[in-house]
Amino acid sequence: MITLSSDFGTPYPAAMKGVILQQTQPRLVDITHELPRQDVRAGAFWLREILPYFPPAVHLVVVDPGVGTDRSAIAVVAGDHVFVAPDNGVVIPAAKGLADEIDVFEIDLGEPESSTFHGRDIFAPAAAIIHDQPDEDWQNDDRFSPCEEYIEVEFPVPDIGEDNARGEVVVVDGFGNAITNIPGKVLADHFGEAIRVNQVYAGVARSYGHAEPGARLVTVGSHGNVELAVNRGRGDEAFGVDTGSRVRLNW
Amino acid sequence: MITLSSDFGTPYPAAMKGVILQQTQPRLVDITHELPRQDVRAGAFWLREILPYFPPAVHLVVVDPGVGTDRSAIAVVAGDHVFVAPDNGVVIPAAKGLADEIDVFEIDLGEPESSTFHGRDIFAPAAAIIHDQPDEDWQNDDRFSPCEEYIEVEFPVPDIGEDNARGEVVVVDGFGNAITNIPGKVLADHFGEAIRVNQVYAGVARSYGHAEPGARLVTVGSHGNVELAVNRGRGDEAFGVDTGSRVRLNW
Amino acid sequence: MITLSSDFGTPYPAAMKGVILQQTQPRLVDITHELPRQDVRAGAFWLREILPYFPPAVHLVVVDPGVGTDRSAIAVVAGDHVFVAPDNGVVIPAAKGLADEIDVFEIDLGEPESSTFHGRDIFAPAAAIIHDQPDEDWQNDDRFSPCEEYIEVEFPVPDIGEDNARGEVVVVDGFGNAITNIPGKVLADHFGEAIRVNQVYAGVARSYGHAEPGARLVTVGSHGNVELAVNRGRGDEAFGVDTGSRVRLNW
Repeated sequence: MITLSSDFGTPYPAAMKGVILQQTQPRLVDITHELPRQDVRAGAFWLREILPYFPPAVHLVVVDPGVGTDRSAIAVVAGDHVFVAPDNGVVIPAAKGLADEIDVFEIDLGEPESSTFHGRDIFAPAAAIIHDQPDEDWQNDDRFSPCEEYIEVEFPVPDIGEDNARGEVVVVDGFGNAITNIPGKVLADHFGEAIRVNQVYAGVARSYGHAEPGARLVTVGSHGNVELAVNRGRGDEAFGVDTGSRVRLNW
Repeated sequence: MITLSSDFGTPYPAAMKGVILQQTQPRLVDITHELPRQDVRAGAFWLREILPYFPPAVHLVVVDPGVGTDRSAIAVVAGDHVFVAPDNGVVIPAAKGLADEIDVFEIDLGEPESSTFHGRDIFAPAAAIIHDQPDEDWQNDDRFSPCEEYIEVEFPVPDIGEDNARGEVVVVDGFGNAITNIPGKVLADHFGEAIRVNQVYAGVARSYGHAEPGARLVTVGSHGNVELAVNRGRGDEAFGVDTGSRVRLNW
Repeated sequence: MITLSSDFGTPYPAAMKGVILQQTQPRLVDITHELPRQDVRAGAFWLREILPYFPPAVHLVVVDPGVGTDRSAIAVVAGDHVFVAPDNGVVIPAAKGLADEIDVFEIDLGEPESSTFHGRDIFAPAAAIIHDQPDEDWQNDDRFSPCEEYIEVEFPVPDIGEDNARGEVVVVDGFGNAITNIPGKVLADHFGEAIRVNQVYAGVARSYGHAEPGARLVTVGSHGNVELAVNRGRGDEAFGVDTGSRVRLNW
């Protein structure tokens, strides 16, 4: 199985699929091609949330603002999973979530056909090669060299106090739910209460439908983090936040 | 085969696929993940139009404004098709379109991992279980209990007169075609004529290309209903209507 | 394998998949369903760029502003690839890119169920028939008749001078990159220089990341053409262009 994730929108992902299917016949599963554009940290967040639900696979990931510069292409081994991606950190949190230790290989497939679409010209062919050579044979292929250094991304660390927590919005999902870096456990004793979120008050609810339609609420999202939401509406707009906005909760 | 439909946008559907693929290896077919957000009736309309074109399958459907409340999760058997969905009516019209009689089962998989993403935590695992147990073995599984009561959705009934029809816009598609609940047969004798649609006149045409580019037209869509459209333009804007708008035709 | 391309958005493509899967069990690969709406030339451009990366397949393509009029449905044979599409030229550049000679067949499956959705009622069934009858047996099926005439689309021809090139924007991709019809070779000696693009100056760069974030640049896209872009921004907005805009480069 090869999964595909990118910020490409459409139709570029199809070229990657064609390249793979010229070489091997895996199950192909699109994770998403709507990762926030060129936002490596947001991409890393989503992949860390979604990919652990998958069985072992080759995960092709391209969020690549540095395409055509001297950033490397890497393959990252995490247990039975292998990630193929630019060396900008986008897959490292997901990989570390899947295995205690990871091994990183630099990919060198020679000169690519283009300077602007390495998804097609480097990452897709590399994913196909790895898929075709199970049992780690690919790790002995000259085109893959072990490397010790690689780029990591840092998620901001929230600040948890006695009666408050401070963090920020990491991503906003398509429903408008503003997902923060604050762990949901801070809300454990406050379900049913109103708490302060920056300048406004909102109820702490088990899920969206526990608030009135149109009402602001604070909940624990499926990722385990505090989420600012509106029942049948958009939390980002109602709370006036976007990716990167500071969030302070007081209870 | 498992089909997947939701109003999730992206990337949440991928988590459902991962959960399924951990357990079973069906063909996965995305119907759409862009059903109108949290609009159960609009979702029900689209599923009733699209799913009958499929061979027997397990249809996983999540439009679920009540996620995390006490609404049930159900499996609905309609001939050789099984639907897995929240008990809010979203799959009932499609199921009843596929079989004269339907059987409904309540799903109880125990406490879900989250209160906000039952697509991942309940519906996807249930679809995988059903897919893995053909010949209705799953119906004898303790986690599925026959139930007599379930929620239905009502589509508005149009009012057809001698020289007019009154109805409403049920959904607007991505082209901007406003699809009404008025059956296309009312136009049968009027192709080539101009009729009145609310306050404006428009020609009745077999298809979009029979009107001038940019011109309003009334046609019978692929679903068999009257559709307000513009050749190479958007009918919703040209007729000033949206989902739920009243439509009165006079001929 | 059957690939699917359209300008349908969602959920209409699913009905085409259902129709195919009722009849045959190919690998289905979505190319895109977000081709520019009813823009045959832009669709032809994208298909010519993407489909050559695929192994032999039946390519179902529906960009069809003339649906329900008297335009024909055709199957186009190009080497081991077969295209199924309306006769409006949308697949001809891709087909001619894949083979020196192409053979065209008119499709007649009898009266379709609808006048407005031939993707479901004609093109999908035809693709399934062709997929089911390899070795060109389908070419002897009465429903497919050889035809000599078919519609072509013309891409505009750029005008290349000593110190300038004039062309136009053929498509804008989802990143906002404005892709022109000017061949990338005109930039070969100018990497690292600033050139004039209409009324503004921009650096010629190997890829986006070679410009400062937010800066305009001119590069050679993955399709080999000159592309107007902004590093981590939108080229269409920064250069003030859209599909069809005239572009003059002076170096």
